[in-house]
Amino acid sequence: MQGLFVTLQFLTLHKKYHGKLEVKSKVPIEDRNDLSLAYTPGVGQVSVEIGKDPSLAREYTLKHNTIAIVSDGSAILGLGNLGAEAAIPVMEGKAVLFKKFANVDAFPICLATQDTEEIIKTVLNIAPVFGGINLEDIAAPRCFEIERRLQKELSIPVMHDDQHGTAIVVLAGLINALKVKKMAKENTRVVMSGAGAAGTAVAKLLLEYGFTDIIICDSRGAIHDEREDMNPEKMELSRLTNPRAIKGSLEEVMIKSDIFIGVSKGGILTEAMVRSMNVDPIIFALANPVPEIMPDLAKSAGAFIVATGRSDFPNQINNVLAFPGVFRGALDHNISQFTDAMFTHAAENLAACVPEPKADFILPSVFDEKIAKAVAEAIH
Amino acid sequence: MQGLFVTLQFLTLHKKYHGKLEVKSKVPIEDRNDLSLAYTPGVGQVSVEIGKDPSLAREYTLKHNTIAIVSDGSAILGLGNLGAEAAIPVMEGKAVLFKKFANVDAFPICLATQDTEEIIKTVLNIAPVFGGINLEDIAAPRCFEIERRLQKELSIPVMHDDQHGTAIVVLAGLINALKVKKMAKENTRVVMSGAGAAGTAVAKLLLEYGFTDIIICDSRGAIHDEREDMNPEKMELSRLTNPRAIKGSLEEVMIKSDIFIGVSKGGILTEAMVRSMNVDPIIFALANPVPEIMPDLAKSAGAFIVATGRSDFPNQINNVLAFPGVFRGALDHNISQFTDAMFTHAAENLAACVPEPKADFILPSVFDEKIAKAVAEAIH
Repeated sequence: MQGLFVTLQFLTLHKKYHGKLEVKSKVPIEDRNDLSLAYTPGVGQVSVEIGKDPSLAREYTLKHNTIAIVSDGSAILGLGNLGAEAAIPVMEGKAVLFKKFANVDAFPICLATQDTEEIIKTVLNIAPVFGGINLEDIAAPRCFEIERRLQKELSIPVMHDDQHGTAIVVLAGLINALKVKKMAKENTRVVMSGAGAAGTAVAKLLLEYGFTDIIICDSRGAIHDEREDMNPEKMELSRLTNPRAIKGSLEEVMIKSDIFIGVSKGGILTEAMVRSMNVDPIIFALANPVPEIMPDLAKSAGAFIVATGRSDFPNQINNVLAFPGVFRGALDHNISQFTDAMFTHAAENLAACVPEPKADFILPSVFDEKIAKAVAEAIH
Repeated sequence: MQGLFVTLQFLTLHKKYHGKLEVKSKVPIEDRNDLSLAYTPGVGQVSVEIGKDPSLAREYTLKHNTIAIVSDGSAILGLGNLGAEAAIPVMEGKAVLFKKFANVDAFPICLATQDTEEIIKTVLNIAPVFGGINLEDIAAPRCFEIERRLQKELSIPVMHDDQHGTAIVVLAGLINALKVKKMAKENTRVVMSGAGAAGTAVAKLLLEYGFTDIIICDSRGAIHDEREDMNPEKMELSRLTNPRAIKGSLEEVMIKSDIFIGVSKGGILTEAMVRSMNVDPIIFALANPVPEIMPDLAKSAGAFIVATGRSDFPNQINNVLAFPGVFRGALDHNISQFTDAMFTHAAENLAACVPEPKADFILPSVFDEKIAKAVAEAIH
């Protein structure tokens, strides 16, 4: 019954407001003079100036502070491929958070195509209005190609939040978890479950930051360079990770590891697997809404620090800790491209928002007003 | 000097605000409960519902009240082809007016392509978020094909404002001008200068409304069905108009006409041409910023009623009298397509906003709050 009640509450909210965003004017229109300044004939002069130097659009138009949140609806939250219309409320919610936490104007673009080339072409065509592109809820492996090509062809920054937003927050959480555990990143053995968009980006950012021993498992077990069933992205992961060339199932590779990061499926981590890890392990069970293992089970099996994606347990790994500040920084510093160095720096700044981390407090509250600013400072 | 001062004022306004629009949240985000309603996990339920029935996006998302203003920057105001970035301030200005006059949320989409097929494809791909498409400042003849194809393939209404917005306001102005002049539309001889987007749409709407004798001139003179230098759109006009099959220059066909409508080029109408018209002629000289003839010259040559596109003379023909109400009506009445009957009805309702028209007051002020509602009532 409570579930039904809550569902009705969500629908009522969305129906009451008919969506969560509006497009508002920042300029007054009270008389003919206002009209002639904001619209014709005054606006014509602004157009002429921008026509001569298109880069002035950054100064004179909404491009200054506006990004697109682009989705094809193919991987909506944990719900799967529900299509463009179903993506709208999620992208609107994201836009609400962009505005609330970093004063970034974000507009949802939900695409009636799931074809990689068409998505790329469409985003290139609509890019002039935007100062940045946040890709969202686009399925792997298509999301990798789309992000790479857009970043190559556009002079505004492009980020797939499911990848890099997640990676920044996971890294920030690990920085503080290792601080609490008093362990150096170079000495850790990391096992990751999930080789999709998030898993790939998390692994790469951890490597960039200095982690060295990471084993990634997909549904068939550890990724290693003798496997022959892999797409190009997994082949790249097989080269970058698993330096000890370990083979086997998740259960097998978990033995004697220090850190588990789950970006996969609810319930796949057992207490026995946690018990097989080294002493005082760190468990990031990020599947939503059901984590790879519930925090109380993980703790009773010996976990020292447990993080999930949920707000009803301590240590929530929530992308909202990263994405508003990332684009705030991108717009403020007029960058044309994101780099891994910016993201690791952002993770460090985010971790530093908790000066004295504890086992059940490794990341700040999303309502901590320092966060977006701290993250933004890293993006330059 | 005044010109320079005014130009600086425009640029200062646009630079001060860095554009004229912002994307705001309509829902409060003050605590974790708000967050879980507007974003995850609450939003997931809304996505699931819309995934089952995409038409619910009209109820639950910004699609309910949001349209796209789409331009390729190829025909910006009277300034020509200045490109996508230069179009942004104009489209922002338009969005400001949509919000101000009809509470329509409008977002500018300025395209990095001027290829007809790419424009069509791009708009189809981004359509899921929008409840309507306002095409703007797209050059003829490409604009005709784009509008026709989009309207055919989309289930949301599509209007090219340079065509139909202009046509509605011109027709409304003529309805009241003929009321003042006490003349029936069936008895008038109309000469139009300009066979581009606006001229074509105005001519078609006047025919739909019951005008019968319209001669359209392009830069080579009257369009008639023996001319062999015409594109498909002008060939269609040659079949629809000029029932007396008159040939000749603008100067020649102006003789003994009752109404001149200029949607062409500043200064091309001479006092002598006005004097060659029937007694008490009606002159709509709509080229901007310099009309086909200045009002004082037209009056001194015998014009009875003069309208221009400018706000510093009486009888301003301004699209803002039409487009906010047109899309307000489209969204309120959930229409899937505009028709000429809706547009003539809108013109009648707009004309009726001036109960007792006079020679120098044939259209209401743009700040008259009745207008958008009156126009919206016609769109169903």
